[in-house]
Amino acid sequence: MSTLTISFQRIDMLQIREASEVDFDNIWPIFKAIASAGDTYAYPANVTRAEGQQLWLVTPRKTFVAEDDGKLLGTYYIKTNQAGPGAHVCNCGYMVAADARGRGIATAMCKHSQAIALELGYEAMQFNLVASTNEGAIRLWQKLGFEIVGRLPGACKHPSRGNVDALVMYKWLVHDA
Amino acid sequence: MSTLTISFQRIDMLQIREASEVDFDNIWPIFKAIASAGDTYAYPANVTRAEGQQLWLVTPRKTFVAEDDGKLLGTYYIKTNQAGPGAHVCNCGYMVAADARGRGIATAMCKHSQAIALELGYEAMQFNLVASTNEGAIRLWQKLGFEIVGRLPGACKHPSRGNVDALVMYKWLVHDA
Repeated sequence: MSTLTISFQRIDMLQIREASEVDFDNIWPIFKAIASAGDTYAYPANVTRAEGQQLWLVTPRKTFVAEDDGKLLGTYYIKTNQAGPGAHVCNCGYMVAADARGRGIATAMCKHSQAIALELGYEAMQFNLVASTNEGAIRLWQKLGFEIVGRLPGACKHPSRGNVDALVMYKWLVHDA
Repeated sequence: MSTLTISFQRIDMLQIREASEVDFDNIWPIFKAIASAGDTYAYPANVTRAEGQQLWLVTPRKTFVAEDDGKLLGTYYIKTNQAGPGAHVCNCGYMVAADARGRGIATAMCKHSQAIALELGYEAMQFNLVASTNEGAIRLWQKLGFEIVGRLPGACKHPSRGNVDALVMYKWLVHDA
């Protein structure tokens, strides 16, 4: 996998490259903070480091990290969402370090992941469980071409707001001639 | 898990009980036929027996079989659909032997699975990828209280009809006082 370098507004150069096992040292603090918050990702709040590594680095088809000047600011995975007749649809998850939010890193990673998805032969991308309270993410995915194609009533237990709806978001990636 | 016996129209007595490893001998022909057809389940059409056993009997939280007079006519699994904030929603899959369809076995299994889901502490049940071409199943799930909460454009590759939409179906199981 080649390395793609994207220039954008507030960080001079963000480099996105495929992750290796040693990167989990730097991924884990981000993963742990987001899983513990329990308001966005469908991971156990008390996830262990070994479980986190399995979920983020081992189970997915590929995992990437986004770095600025060697500092890991974000990470994402890509995997097949369903097997067999559903295997042309991928699923991705994105995490950005708390002190690096609002700088376009999620946008850069999502664009990168769409290019990677096409390289890997996927035709569409699906997010299975976007908490309806996660308004920033929803707006961002919509801006990047994802549509809300489903609403799961009460499917997400928010740590302070109880059962909230979860959204299914989806983007068809292949543009037929 | 206690055994639940349900009487219904065209079969005198259907017994639904938890499956054990040896039951896979009888599950496998049903599983293989349905996976090979490739028009309903998100399993590879060329799935091996070992993979099938992993998918149907090992990965799920529990698996059940429906028998009439000792003959295995159907089977279903129940598992947690998403971890953490999504862990109160379960997912089930049901398979009925080709020569036993139209006798209410899927209905009996689905009702059974809803009772089991509540016993296991789940609050809702979700079907993630119902092929929109699978009209019989969609009608049945609707009759049993499931709603279409999402539509995934082209998310299912039908063996003869190309990319068809897949539905997300969902039922809230807990009736609050």
